[in-house]
Amino acid sequence: MALADLVRMDRNESGIATAIDILKQRFGERLATGQAIREQHAHTTTYLPNQMPDAVVFVRSTQDVQDIVRVCADHRVPVIPFGTGTSLEGQVNAPAGGISVDLSGMDRIVEVNAEDLDCTIEPGVTREALNTHLRDTGLFFPIDPGANASLGGMASTRASGTNAVRYGTMRDNVLSLTAVMANGQAVTTARRARKSSAGYDLTRLIVGSEGTLGIITSLTLRLQGIPQAIAGGVCPFPSVEAACNAVIATIQMGIPVARIELVNALQMKALIAYSKLDYPESPCLFLEFHGTDAGVAEQSELFAGIADEFGGGPFLWTRETEERTRLWKARHDAYHAVKALRPGYQAVATDVCVPISRLAECIVETERDIAEVGLIAPIVGHVGDGNFHVSPLIDASDPRDIERLESFIARLNARAIAMDGTCTGEHGIGQGKMGFIEKELGAGVDVMRSIKRALDPLNIMNPGKIFNL
Amino acid sequence: MALADLVRMDRNESGIATAIDILKQRFGERLATGQAIREQHAHTTTYLPNQMPDAVVFVRSTQDVQDIVRVCADHRVPVIPFGTGTSLEGQVNAPAGGISVDLSGMDRIVEVNAEDLDCTIEPGVTREALNTHLRDTGLFFPIDPGANASLGGMASTRASGTNAVRYGTMRDNVLSLTAVMANGQAVTTARRARKSSAGYDLTRLIVGSEGTLGIITSLTLRLQGIPQAIAGGVCPFPSVEAACNAVIATIQMGIPVARIELVNALQMKALIAYSKLDYPESPCLFLEFHGTDAGVAEQSELFAGIADEFGGGPFLWTRETEERTRLWKARHDAYHAVKALRPGYQAVATDVCVPISRLAECIVETERDIAEVGLIAPIVGHVGDGNFHVSPLIDASDPRDIERLESFIARLNARAIAMDGTCTGEHGIGQGKMGFIEKELGAGVDVMRSIKRALDPLNIMNPGKIFNL
Repeated sequence: MALADLVRMDRNESGIATAIDILKQRFGERLATGQAIREQHAHTTTYLPNQMPDAVVFVRSTQDVQDIVRVCADHRVPVIPFGTGTSLEGQVNAPAGGISVDLSGMDRIVEVNAEDLDCTIEPGVTREALNTHLRDTGLFFPIDPGANASLGGMASTRASGTNAVRYGTMRDNVLSLTAVMANGQAVTTARRARKSSAGYDLTRLIVGSEGTLGIITSLTLRLQGIPQAIAGGVCPFPSVEAACNAVIATIQMGIPVARIELVNALQMKALIAYSKLDYPESPCLFLEFHGTDAGVAEQSELFAGIADEFGGGPFLWTRETEERTRLWKARHDAYHAVKALRPGYQAVATDVCVPISRLAECIVETERDIAEVGLIAPIVGHVGDGNFHVSPLIDASDPRDIERLESFIARLNARAIAMDGTCTGEHGIGQGKMGFIEKELGAGVDVMRSIKRALDPLNIMNPGKIFNL
Repeated sequence: MALADLVRMDRNESGIATAIDILKQRFGERLATGQAIREQHAHTTTYLPNQMPDAVVFVRSTQDVQDIVRVCADHRVPVIPFGTGTSLEGQVNAPAGGISVDLSGMDRIVEVNAEDLDCTIEPGVTREALNTHLRDTGLFFPIDPGANASLGGMASTRASGTNAVRYGTMRDNVLSLTAVMANGQAVTTARRARKSSAGYDLTRLIVGSEGTLGIITSLTLRLQGIPQAIAGGVCPFPSVEAACNAVIATIQMGIPVARIELVNALQMKALIAYSKLDYPESPCLFLEFHGTDAGVAEQSELFAGIADEFGGGPFLWTRETEERTRLWKARHDAYHAVKALRPGYQAVATDVCVPISRLAECIVETERDIAEVGLIAPIVGHVGDGNFHVSPLIDASDPRDIERLESFIARLNARAIAMDGTCTGEHGIGQGKMGFIEKELGAGVDVMRSIKRALDPLNIMNPGKIFNL
């Protein structure tokens, strides 16, 4: 089925009109129906069609969210949570219209428990805001998906990014959360203990559910101590295979690498041009090590030895902050660097994840596919986890480009799934990957549907995402 | 409500008789109804009453489990999974009778993927059997709850133990699993990629669900590289507070301690007597560090400095295997050491978990409570996680002892919950903690009930556990 068919839904016009009338009285100026605001709250970061909500409510409290959900439940109107709008698979689109709940104003850091290495925040806090707030405590929140996303959104899509190989994903770093469920009830999923065996893991059920089961209004997050020393560097390799094999050896040896990122030759070319770097245009690994002074030196030297063994190197590493910052800024600018390869074209970000033993094979086959169909599509990857991104550049106004893109993404996902991998390591399903989740999980999707129907019998919570009911 | 009331359920006599007839034809000698076998498959590790199943089937395949579940669904008969019977809260009891599914014969190690640091196994494999199998690969499975439990059982109860502070719990170390659901369908929850954002986290939903949603018939587990060097030692402290403060400082400093275990003064006395150790009878921390030769030396010295700061020490550490083995054998023998304190009495193992900032306070108050009610109840704890165990010694035939025990456990759980902790860090709810989960999670338990009803509408999967429907 084409994506356009998958994401088509019917609208409940009278319910929507009634709900907006009621909510307008409750929220006044905090409810907006202007075209520009509604467009901005639907999806804009992909080639997917923009499907606007009918109104946007700027909420300030859990109670606000409960009030909206109750009104929407009474009138069977969709409720779509919105953080910063940086999700990549159409998660904030409103295929059946409805109310967008903008949580960006819920941006209080409620408490930081330094002794317990945790904090409780509202969902609109962004990861950069949290880390700025934490600066003087000696602690930091490690998950870094690139975009300065809201932490509620990051939890909803089970985001991760460059640090996941060391610190895990949002799955591992949310201790507890409060979510407003489809019946308007606010449910707290766990207490603040670092582990628990008390019943079903509701925290992990809500994390990654993309707003389809509840709207997150509070998060308790694990924090990490800022390491005494950080070292990093870039290491070139003769081939993607050589780089991947070095990664496997590094992980097997138990080197606690904090980041290990693959950048393929085309992406290196883009980075070099965009960020004025002095590196070879060959596949490279970007690395970072966290630990004591002695520890990061030992890790760096151990890695240099592994790189050498696989024909890579030289691995020039440094503890100097300025040089490392320049390095990671370049890596984070990958998206802009890609766009600069072909001005006026749109860069589409897509991701898959495979067991790392299959990573080299998967990337090489993907590079061949890209060459055969004549796409411009650089690759970067969080290779310690087997996760990589492809960023095809397309003319979104050209139906042939869309068709070529969709068939490329279909082959990419089929390839990852055939290698015992997943159609998304960290972007989520949203609308963009709905065509692949059944292929990946089969009867598991029926279990998801049963849970969805039990917890949201009216299908008002971000409907038309992850799977069709 | 008293525990005895919570765990009472009605039996479906005719359904049970019919199901056993049908299953007898299908399984022949592999279905047992003898009293001794049935008793052994109900709960024996606690003071809870033994509630026998009506038959035990020794299964060999996922298909066997599917056949049993389908017959039991047709006749509304409970199905209770059984691994090694080492669970501690009555998880394998059969309050409404039914069929015990003994998975210990499903003990094949299906594959080890050394490059991906994972393996796929059947649920009856024990953790010791897995580690013995892995010995020559340079890999190990880190989760160690003490007992040589089956890995299926460990997943079902979300077990953890001494290594969790470094390697996480079963929640973090199951990549994927296959479970036979209440409709007889076998569902695989994820593929073998190390991370995924594809839909609801069914893996984490089944892990810790104690057989109430499905029966695990296959597990894919994360493995770790055996560290180059291991160091360890015991460090005495003047008080529980001093020891806990040293733990907090260690974690905050980011020392990647592999194990950090608190043993209180009474438990030390028991260990010293039982294992003939030459240590002071004061609160002690047992520690272990994993890393390179230089790394474990640095970690050990850093910790020694912290211990000194809090009035503890001397911290004598060693890389020598024999001495470390003796140390951890003593720690693992805690249960037997406790029993030896008062021969003929039963040692009841109970656990709670609190934020580590509250740990000292929680243990000190618990020690005072123990003294006031005149229990003999040593304490050991996985203090890096804020998790500790109390092991009251009781005469299980004396109703006054049972009453005193139950009221002590009720106060212990209320204390932990009031400190933003959980009524169980790693033992699960089973029957023993059913009285506390609502106090801990409130409306969260309603969400669990909705999920249970959706996935097991006939309530045949290990009924009468975690919560009453």
